[in-house]
Amino acid sequence: MKFSMERATLLKAVSQAQSVVERRNTIPILANVLIEAEGDTVMFRATDLDIEVVDKAPAQVEKAGATTVSAVMLHEIVRKLPDGALVTLTEDGASGRLTVEAGRSNFSLATLPKEDFPVMASSEYSANFSAKASVLRRLFDKAKFAISTEETRYYLNGVYMHVAEAEDGRMLRCVATDGHRLARIDATVPAGAEDMPGVIVPRKTVGELRKLLDDDDMDIAVSVSETKVRFATPDITLTSKVIDGTFPDYTRVIPTSNTRRLEVDAADFAKAVDRVATVSSERSRAVKLQLDEDRLVLSVNAPDSGAAEEELAVAYGDERLEIGFNAKYLLEIASQVDRENAVFLFNSSGDPTLMREGNDTSAVYVVMPMRV
Amino acid sequence: MKFSMERATLLKAVSQAQSVVERRNTIPILANVLIEAEGDTVMFRATDLDIEVVDKAPAQVEKAGATTVSAVMLHEIVRKLPDGALVTLTEDGASGRLTVEAGRSNFSLATLPKEDFPVMASSEYSANFSAKASVLRRLFDKAKFAISTEETRYYLNGVYMHVAEAEDGRMLRCVATDGHRLARIDATVPAGAEDMPGVIVPRKTVGELRKLLDDDDMDIAVSVSETKVRFATPDITLTSKVIDGTFPDYTRVIPTSNTRRLEVDAADFAKAVDRVATVSSERSRAVKLQLDEDRLVLSVNAPDSGAAEEELAVAYGDERLEIGFNAKYLLEIASQVDRENAVFLFNSSGDPTLMREGNDTSAVYVVMPMRV
Repeated sequence: MKFSMERATLLKAVSQAQSVVERRNTIPILANVLIEAEGDTVMFRATDLDIEVVDKAPAQVEKAGATTVSAVMLHEIVRKLPDGALVTLTEDGASGRLTVEAGRSNFSLATLPKEDFPVMASSEYSANFSAKASVLRRLFDKAKFAISTEETRYYLNGVYMHVAEAEDGRMLRCVATDGHRLARIDATVPAGAEDMPGVIVPRKTVGELRKLLDDDDMDIAVSVSETKVRFATPDITLTSKVIDGTFPDYTRVIPTSNTRRLEVDAADFAKAVDRVATVSSERSRAVKLQLDEDRLVLSVNAPDSGAAEEELAVAYGDERLEIGFNAKYLLEIASQVDRENAVFLFNSSGDPTLMREGNDTSAVYVVMPMRV
Repeated sequence: MKFSMERATLLKAVSQAQSVVERRNTIPILANVLIEAEGDTVMFRATDLDIEVVDKAPAQVEKAGATTVSAVMLHEIVRKLPDGALVTLTEDGASGRLTVEAGRSNFSLATLPKEDFPVMASSEYSANFSAKASVLRRLFDKAKFAISTEETRYYLNGVYMHVAEAEDGRMLRCVATDGHRLARIDATVPAGAEDMPGVIVPRKTVGELRKLLDDDDMDIAVSVSETKVRFATPDITLTSKVIDGTFPDYTRVIPTSNTRRLEVDAADFAKAVDRVATVSSERSRAVKLQLDEDRLVLSVNAPDSGAAEEELAVAYGDERLEIGFNAKYLLEIASQVDRENAVFLFNSSGDPTLMREGNDTSAVYVVMPMRV
């Protein structure tokens, strides 16, 4: 195998691969990237056995072939090479070494046989559709903060992507929850997605997927089966097992009859919550919201260290209400609001509270109160 | 006590205080800042019993007084307040609380009695002099990377500031070493410093001092005794105990008869060292330098992962030489060079090597070789 690539192209291709590789591996081959050169293309493939990423890049291939080499080390080397360098990778098949050359730099890296590399079995996908990168980005970015980190509730360790019946018809929907808060984000169903099976996309996959979604107008090819999901740009294909479990019926958690409406500037609100939460040493301390005619008082009382109180001018016309929340959850939810005011809908101080952006019901958040 | 200050002024004063405070304290009062308001000035004082910092700031003092409050919490609160806010701090002496008010935010913080705050005993200083911030910054910044972290060699855990006999007469000199490398930085002796006792300034003090030295032209008042050192700007006074030990006779370590001269672009050299060091998993792996007529080959050989080699065009006219160094030490030393080429002076592959910037002998570095 012998081929040459411009440093920036090589760096981009290897970046995605090394990010999938787990840093602590008991199986040596999983630390490696499989490099396959043929025609005028080189494929870089990496896997952690649950996720596989394949990145294709154009190259001047002098001799076709394949080998595997440490993904992290190759990435580090390429990253440190001077910008604009032409990098040549050579493997003679006999020495068990891959040579990386650029200018006056010369590296010789240990390889492992390409035959040992675990290529993910291909699958039949029951649904194939295309979605804009910006649409997928919104669906996952706004949901992912609510993913649970509790390993015992493995079925909550991801984003549930499915097609759901909403008020305005069927929607492509992403939901995540950890039992304390929930995010439900909707988008128009793309053609071909109508009958897709619902899948729980694991947290790590959500993170890797994010790197494919920087270009707003890029069309992403999505394929879904009961066990796998695939996202592909023209260059990069990300295939992931989905979480083998049943996502709970989240619809019962979303309150429908909350009527007490608070409207507040999301940025001012977040800053005020952050300030009053300072007096409690633990970040999870409860913040109390006292609502009165167009007036919101946020307060925290931490007997050891002190107390804090802040008043905000808001729009609120219902009867007096006191309710407590985890400050961290309030901050995370408020930071999802980009364009308009945050609208909170309360019922009583013991009931889940709903939050959305203005009157936009395509992104809805639920947060459980705390006793204060 | 009651006074008001502009948020930015308060933030700056509290910043320096909270950075001296140790995060894990068994003595509660040491987590606090002592606030003393009198006349039109407020003093903020913090200590870890080894270092004391006092920051004076102008304020509208309505009622003189003093109290102590958590430095970290006060800093966090002030940091989160909106820019431009006027902050009022009130303590009535009876409630045991300090009230912090700004706009619609109101905080009430637990206090501890000002009488419990350990104020550092004042001392007689045997030398007092003034130095430009830029001069002190150079002396300490260029030396500090070589400070030892070995607690058993406590006398190496700081920068040795003293007056020394150099080739061009007496110099104000900072030296640091960990036994593997050494930095020796000289400056003109300021008037009044001629007879100062040599002191070992602890690592933490060097870090805190750095924050006083941002303004090049600021005059810093320095006072030195056998046991303490003090650095003062018009606003901030930093007093520190010095390390109670004897700094070893470093002059014996600095080679004087190294004649093999290598001149190299410091940035190119550092990048090349960094690149070849990539193939070894441990950052401390040895880099081999092979020197020949105007040619330097850097190489690393790590049997498990691979090998790397890079050639640099250099100025070298002596006989062939092979010598090994810890890559990390070479990188740190090369990064001290700002203006000119790095000049290395070698003797044999087993002897300490000297490095300086061009022909400038006011900053000299020594690094011990490694067997490769």
